[in-house]
Amino acid sequence: MTKSLSRTASDAVDRLLNPRSVAVVGSLREARFGGYVTTNNLLRFGYKGKIYPVNPQYERVLDLKVYPSVKDIPEPVDLVVTMAGAPAVPKIIADSVQNRARAAIIISDGFGERNEDGKRLQQEVNRIAESGGLRLLGPNTIGVANPAIGLITTPYRVTYEKMITGGVALCAQTGLIGPQNMPLEETHYGLSKMCDFGNKCDIDEIDLLDYLVDDPDTKVIAMHLEVIRDGQLFLRKAKEVVARKPVIVLKPGRTRDSQRAMASHTGSLAGEDIIYDSAFKQAGVIRVDNFRELIDIPKVLATQPLPRGNRLALVTISGGAGVMAIDIASTHGLTLAKLSAATLEKLAAVSPVLASNPVDLGPGLPAYQVAGGIASRFPAMIEAILDDENVDCLAMACPWGVRGKIADVFGPMAKRKSKTMVVWVAGPSLSIAEEMNRDFEAIGLPTYPDGDSAIRALSVAVRYSRIQAGFSEAKGRSDEAISGQGDILR
Amino acid sequence: MTKSLSRTASDAVDRLLNPRSVAVVGSLREARFGGYVTTNNLLRFGYKGKIYPVNPQYERVLDLKVYPSVKDIPEPVDLVVTMAGAPAVPKIIADSVQNRARAAIIISDGFGERNEDGKRLQQEVNRIAESGGLRLLGPNTIGVANPAIGLITTPYRVTYEKMITGGVALCAQTGLIGPQNMPLEETHYGLSKMCDFGNKCDIDEIDLLDYLVDDPDTKVIAMHLEVIRDGQLFLRKAKEVVARKPVIVLKPGRTRDSQRAMASHTGSLAGEDIIYDSAFKQAGVIRVDNFRELIDIPKVLATQPLPRGNRLALVTISGGAGVMAIDIASTHGLTLAKLSAATLEKLAAVSPVLASNPVDLGPGLPAYQVAGGIASRFPAMIEAILDDENVDCLAMACPWGVRGKIADVFGPMAKRKSKTMVVWVAGPSLSIAEEMNRDFEAIGLPTYPDGDSAIRALSVAVRYSRIQAGFSEAKGRSDEAISGQGDILR
Repeated sequence: MTKSLSRTASDAVDRLLNPRSVAVVGSLREARFGGYVTTNNLLRFGYKGKIYPVNPQYERVLDLKVYPSVKDIPEPVDLVVTMAGAPAVPKIIADSVQNRARAAIIISDGFGERNEDGKRLQQEVNRIAESGGLRLLGPNTIGVANPAIGLITTPYRVTYEKMITGGVALCAQTGLIGPQNMPLEETHYGLSKMCDFGNKCDIDEIDLLDYLVDDPDTKVIAMHLEVIRDGQLFLRKAKEVVARKPVIVLKPGRTRDSQRAMASHTGSLAGEDIIYDSAFKQAGVIRVDNFRELIDIPKVLATQPLPRGNRLALVTISGGAGVMAIDIASTHGLTLAKLSAATLEKLAAVSPVLASNPVDLGPGLPAYQVAGGIASRFPAMIEAILDDENVDCLAMACPWGVRGKIADVFGPMAKRKSKTMVVWVAGPSLSIAEEMNRDFEAIGLPTYPDGDSAIRALSVAVRYSRIQAGFSEAKGRSDEAISGQGDILR
Repeated sequence: MTKSLSRTASDAVDRLLNPRSVAVVGSLREARFGGYVTTNNLLRFGYKGKIYPVNPQYERVLDLKVYPSVKDIPEPVDLVVTMAGAPAVPKIIADSVQNRARAAIIISDGFGERNEDGKRLQQEVNRIAESGGLRLLGPNTIGVANPAIGLITTPYRVTYEKMITGGVALCAQTGLIGPQNMPLEETHYGLSKMCDFGNKCDIDEIDLLDYLVDDPDTKVIAMHLEVIRDGQLFLRKAKEVVARKPVIVLKPGRTRDSQRAMASHTGSLAGEDIIYDSAFKQAGVIRVDNFRELIDIPKVLATQPLPRGNRLALVTISGGAGVMAIDIASTHGLTLAKLSAATLEKLAAVSPVLASNPVDLGPGLPAYQVAGGIASRFPAMIEAILDDENVDCLAMACPWGVRGKIADVFGPMAKRKSKTMVVWVAGPSLSIAEEMNRDFEAIGLPTYPDGDSAIRALSVAVRYSRIQAGFSEAKGRSDEAISGQGDILR
């Protein structure tokens, strides 16, 4: 129980996520999966530490010297990564212990998630590692990523060549968060660390919370957790972390069907959902409903200041969109800000039809397009809203007329970071929307696929702001009742 | 009350949606908005009827003869479209009456949604039209589209040149559904008809239901309705329609904030939300929660056979994704199908790790990639699932290894239409996913951005199947209680 709190444990997790050297043990044949791919990914993504490919059948691969086994590597490596077949893994872990390696990632499957033999094999591997002070991630994982140092261990081909650094730490009991599955570069998604727990035979959510709470690059922690190994410890640890950084959790397994499916693919049993629910509430952990939310919501917390209240200003491209946005906002405990007379005056100076909340760009669009374009109207409009003391946060639709001018138009206000802002692009072209989303993300404004998800993200920022402000759980509850947002922290 | 049920009314709506000739009254200056854009859109999208641009300042535009006023057009036109400034509209409508035009779309704003003067102007226009037997759509609308004849009236520039015909009729009290806002071509979205009601001074949801129920091109009707003018009539009419075609409704205005915003942009007051809720339930109308669902859910009903039950087969790319999918499925009243022994045997013949539900592609992916690719495994796998009598519907994740082979691999099973199928593409590249989605849509398989939305769409198909099977509301309710899907029809 104390292992994860000790100095040594956190050091080993640091070696896992910040290794100075990586040994890759597995097939070195050019393929879509395997040791070759991992080695190649490390090179392509610019990993600057030492790379030691390990395979008895090769001498050189990708211009790197290949070692017959981990124990032949002339120095202790920080991290061993293996995707060798399960039966070969005990020997590889034993070799790693002999090498005095600090951490190992077992990408290979066929362990606890497969059958009884696999469970025994997993226990054996665990015993070998433990006896040698080696910490293990996995098995049945794609491993970790740390964009700041170009570290990536996924054994699958990735279609892009860059990872963007940012404030979101993504941890999951699935490889779905990995760059082989998510367009992280294409969406300019900024990561601090990425970690797939896999079967979680050793390194787990407690280790990562422990590490990430002190990681200066991590602003928000997002975790997909099928199983929590020690509920009491998690509760205590999460409470500590939440006081300093938001923790967003997706905990599947609400139904018996899904609990059965979890047991079969991770080899472990889940507890009653209601227990998790209550534990999360006590700890101030924010539970989300689906994978999309787990990925998208943290962006606002990683890039924006926390809102001081729940008063929302809305910029929409049509009256109908405004009505729908307000419905979503109210459902999630946000209230429409009452703009001050001064603000309404400033908006009217930009255009009379803009002087309300929601600020509806629709009626004036034809006129703006004639006279200088919509882009020229934005700075005065948004500055006026951000200056209003009655506004805590802003959700803004951006029409595609602003394409190509995003850094110019929105750069200065993004830098101010005076209020919590979220953006969605409204337009008829997927590629233009993607380009504009990237431009917004590049200046630190989080984008969402539509108004609903943007507003939902803001509501979580409001919720965390209240949690951090020291609301006790009892206070939090009456607060929820007042604002009707009982559904936010489920 | 009877007007909308009369033969004449439905004929006029037919002229609105199937006009043999269109007069476009408005600015003919080349710009991003206006009569020039509408005329140009009609030409670009291949409208084959007669086009009469109307403007006293021009003689020719885009190779077309321009008429000084509608009454100078030498034949009665089916449809007049105007985006002229509001004060000019009464005269244009009077001219249209004189021309013996059948229907007019008033795109112009500045009417009931603006202020008291605008309300009076709207009443005046309405009176002129009514006295001349002219039916009106709008004001404050982008009008209609009918891809089968290349009809499009939006006055905004559209980035693409083609509309795909299909079974979804989209109607809304907002222009958001228009091609100037949605990537209909890029997503291969098949429309039968599109109609923006705008301020709904005349033609309304009753007229459209009346028309669409008999429209052979329309398989499913999706409506965004801020205000329903006559609840009793709607209830009666919707019940008739639902017996023949599914009706999906997005009704915003759940909260006082959003009701206020609706009043300001459409100039009309909404009723209590709970009344709508109960009316929809009685009529078998399926209410959805947000705009994304309104657009995405109808696709499955337009392209797939109705499921005979709620037993779901799942194909996922990872165990973790499977667990999350099952959670969503259970929440929406679907149950995991118990595959027959014969099916499990057939799946095991493709690969031993596939023999379960969810069918998890994950563990075998590296092996498939080596031996012939994942694409070669799909036909036998999916055919086995579709042949299983314990399976009513299938939600399938498709990895990007199938890129470029979708018509070959999935074409034959898409043609069978034996079970309800939905698809989502799992991969790390937005553009590859888009391309694959288009390929799936082109062979009639509906795609969704993720497993959650795909499964949600299936659940609506199951729900409608039960409604159509003649479940009385009382029966329906106990049925909901059994399956725990009380949230589907809200």
